[in-house]
Amino acid sequence: MTDTRFSSAIHTLIMIAGAEAPLTSEQIANSVGTNPSYIRKLTALLKKGGILAGRPGVGGFVLRVPPQTLTLYDVYRAIYETEQVHVFDLHRNANDACIVGRHIESVLTQAFQEIEEKAENELKAQTLSGLMAQMRKEICKGAKTDY
Amino acid sequence: MTDTRFSSAIHTLIMIAGAEAPLTSEQIANSVGTNPSYIRKLTALLKKGGILAGRPGVGGFVLRVPPQTLTLYDVYRAIYETEQVHVFDLHRNANDACIVGRHIESVLTQAFQEIEEKAENELKAQTLSGLMAQMRKEICKGAKTDY
Repeated sequence: MTDTRFSSAIHTLIMIAGAEAPLTSEQIANSVGTNPSYIRKLTALLKKGGILAGRPGVGGFVLRVPPQTLTLYDVYRAIYETEQVHVFDLHRNANDACIVGRHIESVLTQAFQEIEEKAENELKAQTLSGLMAQMRKEICKGAKTDY
Repeated sequence: MTDTRFSSAIHTLIMIAGAEAPLTSEQIANSVGTNPSYIRKLTALLKKGGILAGRPGVGGFVLRVPPQTLTLYDVYRAIYETEQVHVFDLHRNANDACIVGRHIESVLTQAFQEIEEKAENELKAQTLSGLMAQMRKEICKGAKTDY
């Protein structure tokens, strides 16, 4: 079960941040390898999250935040509409009649939160401009660039 | 799309580590709130990963590793049969004809690996005995204990 919304949203933002003129959902979808309506769902969430401005068709999208201050955590929060980074699912049907079953959810919630906090901190440490710099490096590994 | 194999495997191991006599898959399933065949799938993976010994029915399961040295990373590795902790899915259909599309996979792979390394380190820092100690704390918050 893959969920590539986060990954596609970052691709979308790299496209928008690097574009000379505002991009439409059609142009973005062409690069991401999906359809414009999927991109519009993502851009709607990014707009709701305060990251993008603009409307599809009406001149395309622009960033509302400088790429230097836009972190992957901001993108995550906008796309999944939650403050809490989620890594591992908990089973919710443990047997209350068993002493382990009764307390497992609370024990695992704490254990998983430690992991999710580390992931959150790393998401906060990575900015869109950092990824764009990495993208330029990758491009320059090849000979010619049109970016 | 939830995947509670990891969570259920930890529950299983806490049960086995804390039991006075080897537990059967039926007894474990009763606490986890699932069926014995699901538990047998998990215990088969845990046996393959060198964490459990014993066969269902034939006396139940026992730990092959002390809970003090068994980390959540060991459990993860056994259950998902991979060394690499996975947090975020990548879209694989980006358009090679676009310069961003051509390099996005390599850029995001690196970015996501940073996050996955942090998660891996935290999984390595948490032991089964640590979770069992936390379980005892939770139990003692309530008045009586039968654990």
